[in-house]
Amino acid sequence: MPRHVDVAIIGAGTAGLYALSQVRKATDSYVLIDGGELGTTCARVGCMPSKVAIQVGEDFHRRGIFERMGIEGGEALGLNAREALEHIRDLRDVFVDKVLSGSTDDMGEEFIPAHARFVSPTELEVDGERIHAKRIIIATGSTPVIPGDWRAFHDRVITTDELFELEELPGTMAVIGLGTIGLEMGQALSRMGVEVTGIDQLDHIAGLQDPEAQKTALEILGKEMPLWLGEGATISEEDGRLRVTAGDQSVVVDKVLASMGRRPNVQGLGLEHLGVELDKRGLPAFDPHTLQVGDLPVFIAGDVTGDRAILHEAGWEGRVAGFNAVQDTPVGFRRQVPLAINFCDPNIAVVGRAWNDLDPDTTAIGEVKLGPLGRALIMGKNKGIIRVYADKRDGRLLGASLVAVKGEHLAHLLAWSIQQGLTVFDLMRMPFYHPSIEEGLQSALYDLKGKIEQQPAEPVELQHL
Amino acid sequence: MPRHVDVAIIGAGTAGLYALSQVRKATDSYVLIDGGELGTTCARVGCMPSKVAIQVGEDFHRRGIFERMGIEGGEALGLNAREALEHIRDLRDVFVDKVLSGSTDDMGEEFIPAHARFVSPTELEVDGERIHAKRIIIATGSTPVIPGDWRAFHDRVITTDELFELEELPGTMAVIGLGTIGLEMGQALSRMGVEVTGIDQLDHIAGLQDPEAQKTALEILGKEMPLWLGEGATISEEDGRLRVTAGDQSVVVDKVLASMGRRPNVQGLGLEHLGVELDKRGLPAFDPHTLQVGDLPVFIAGDVTGDRAILHEAGWEGRVAGFNAVQDTPVGFRRQVPLAINFCDPNIAVVGRAWNDLDPDTTAIGEVKLGPLGRALIMGKNKGIIRVYADKRDGRLLGASLVAVKGEHLAHLLAWSIQQGLTVFDLMRMPFYHPSIEEGLQSALYDLKGKIEQQPAEPVELQHL
Repeated sequence: MPRHVDVAIIGAGTAGLYALSQVRKATDSYVLIDGGELGTTCARVGCMPSKVAIQVGEDFHRRGIFERMGIEGGEALGLNAREALEHIRDLRDVFVDKVLSGSTDDMGEEFIPAHARFVSPTELEVDGERIHAKRIIIATGSTPVIPGDWRAFHDRVITTDELFELEELPGTMAVIGLGTIGLEMGQALSRMGVEVTGIDQLDHIAGLQDPEAQKTALEILGKEMPLWLGEGATISEEDGRLRVTAGDQSVVVDKVLASMGRRPNVQGLGLEHLGVELDKRGLPAFDPHTLQVGDLPVFIAGDVTGDRAILHEAGWEGRVAGFNAVQDTPVGFRRQVPLAINFCDPNIAVVGRAWNDLDPDTTAIGEVKLGPLGRALIMGKNKGIIRVYADKRDGRLLGASLVAVKGEHLAHLLAWSIQQGLTVFDLMRMPFYHPSIEEGLQSALYDLKGKIEQQPAEPVELQHL
Repeated sequence: MPRHVDVAIIGAGTAGLYALSQVRKATDSYVLIDGGELGTTCARVGCMPSKVAIQVGEDFHRRGIFERMGIEGGEALGLNAREALEHIRDLRDVFVDKVLSGSTDDMGEEFIPAHARFVSPTELEVDGERIHAKRIIIATGSTPVIPGDWRAFHDRVITTDELFELEELPGTMAVIGLGTIGLEMGQALSRMGVEVTGIDQLDHIAGLQDPEAQKTALEILGKEMPLWLGEGATISEEDGRLRVTAGDQSVVVDKVLASMGRRPNVQGLGLEHLGVELDKRGLPAFDPHTLQVGDLPVFIAGDVTGDRAILHEAGWEGRVAGFNAVQDTPVGFRRQVPLAINFCDPNIAVVGRAWNDLDPDTTAIGEVKLGPLGRALIMGKNKGIIRVYADKRDGRLLGASLVAVKGEHLAHLLAWSIQQGLTVFDLMRMPFYHPSIEEGLQSALYDLKGKIEQQPAEPVELQHL
């Protein structure tokens, strides 16, 4: 006999769990279905272990600046990679346990540890059983892409799914794909002592579209590891190691980290039974504000959408999908301002409207290089650039690209300001503490201010009572 | 023959230089008068050298966490104090040069390197000459307080005026006065290897009024150095060293850092000739929004006001005083939201309305302890607390007290939000990246949200299109 529920959620990752929290407020009739490894991508193999690796790399790398500060003995520091990897896993386990204890651990028969397959827009097949659901939420996440023929190299070509399971670090490594993950892990591994070569078939890194930010990022990160851009990589065996070739450059390495993006987990999900068109990735069209798939009683949220694969966006989408799955009519919500942070050192952050979507005729750009910024100089991290975009007619902030120490924090300030529709002049009235990295942003705003057509009364920093 | 100018500015520090930048836009007829050492307090003996010392202390202290990360050899690191102090002075000189090159270096006879004394509200005596000015700006700054009888101990009792000139660090030190400066320098010196005892006659540190934040700050900082609170200190000679006694506690030290606040520089300034009442510090009353002294053609700005002795406030005040000094009628400006940051580790920050000014009947408090915060755990800095205050009727943010890693950045987010009159619900709609310290603030906001009477429709994190 088929089971009947109000809502079925496929996927117990971030989006699925956020959806669940909304669904639970409205009904006790639901199931959460996940046949994969539990714990979110973020906690298991994503944001969290990668941040631990970055932290270890950063702390170890810092010894390079000790001498000028009078700290002696830095050259004798060494990294015990086995212990560092153990430390990463220890913390990773803490984070995964926290996710599980707050979710599936406490669930009874509402949690089904199996794979689901659509039979129709309101019916799933799970482990040979049928589940009828008034609404279904797809939150199946994504999986790292790896070219099929690279599978032949077995555990010498790995993704982040395997990286944090290593017991030892290889001596040499190629990181193929220099988006956020490749760049973060490439730098962290390099700082932990691995000889890393970074390769991407695109001619830019970290998804940076702004050419000046791109140039700065390449200059800074290129000093820590060679970055080969603009040519796809091929891999071949060579004396038990791997030869990686891109264009006319070539290197022999012990391992390859393939960080070439992630593909939506739709295989075997039976989306073809939804009766709507699927794109070449196998995904149906959906409304980004309601997360509804067509006009079906089906919602989609999180990394599986192939868009904005970032935890807080997955959470937002899960919340919207979960909320709408228990409404009579789906409600459209305003997306948050785009905010993407790459935790390299310096941070690379992109906020608001993408560079490629800016209208050159109506956009003003404020820029500052961090060189003379007092606080950055004190930290020994004064290489970087801040670029802020505004509508040049009225000064309304549109976006920013940052390659900067503490860029993650400046990015929050900017995202919040843009989401409120503030202008460059509004920001100039805010307090900027001294000496802070925020003062770098202030300098960029001064540069930007000069390029706005419609100026308020001077002094713009002061607000009449 | 007396010299006649539109505006005379007394003091070439931060407030004076900001004032000058406004005055110059309106007139070429001005003088800047300063008989003291040039370069701002901030660059010479304040924010900047102290931040370098904090950075050195922080980097050296970090070795305590190396082992758990797999970084070996941390126990063999040593601090060469002579070189560290040299490094502090090197950077300090860079900052001072930058201030000078942008200001007095380029001035001709408009700059007068002498002391000024009021003869009347529009007349100064400078080096035996008379200067008539239509408007006069007082921006003479402040000087560290040191009890008169402690002068007898000569260079064994120092202030921040002398601290950064030391060639060697003493083995033991008492830091008397645990406001921002004492606490920052006490921790930095302790981390640099000095055996520090912190003493304050008050029963709280860092000017923290919020009792929970206070408790947390004491717990954390008290682990790095003993903190004796609630009793004033006395000093006596003992075998060529100094015995410092506070209540029934006593310690013998090599040097004392007196960090007991700063007094306005009004001595010899002839303020009694303004013809207005002076308070016990020798200061006239002034309007905090126009910076005008009574209804005189005299303005006052910066640390000399005895209020908000923080660089960005001095800059704001200088700008207002300078602007108003060239207007027919002074204009009142809205003060920025109070923002005070102590750069100890963890940062201690106070934003917005002071705890003592909150109305307990109408205030809701959101709180989070940083213990479980993922990113803080990764950094090994998960001790701390975030307390956010809002009007409990409508959720409008009022203020916050933070004892938290990256507190300086959270404090900017909060100050900017408060200045815009945002509510806790507005903030919950903003993006919070993962994993970030900003998520700690998010948790505090969730706690706060539950205590607000007037709730918007759920889910509060989503904003209708």
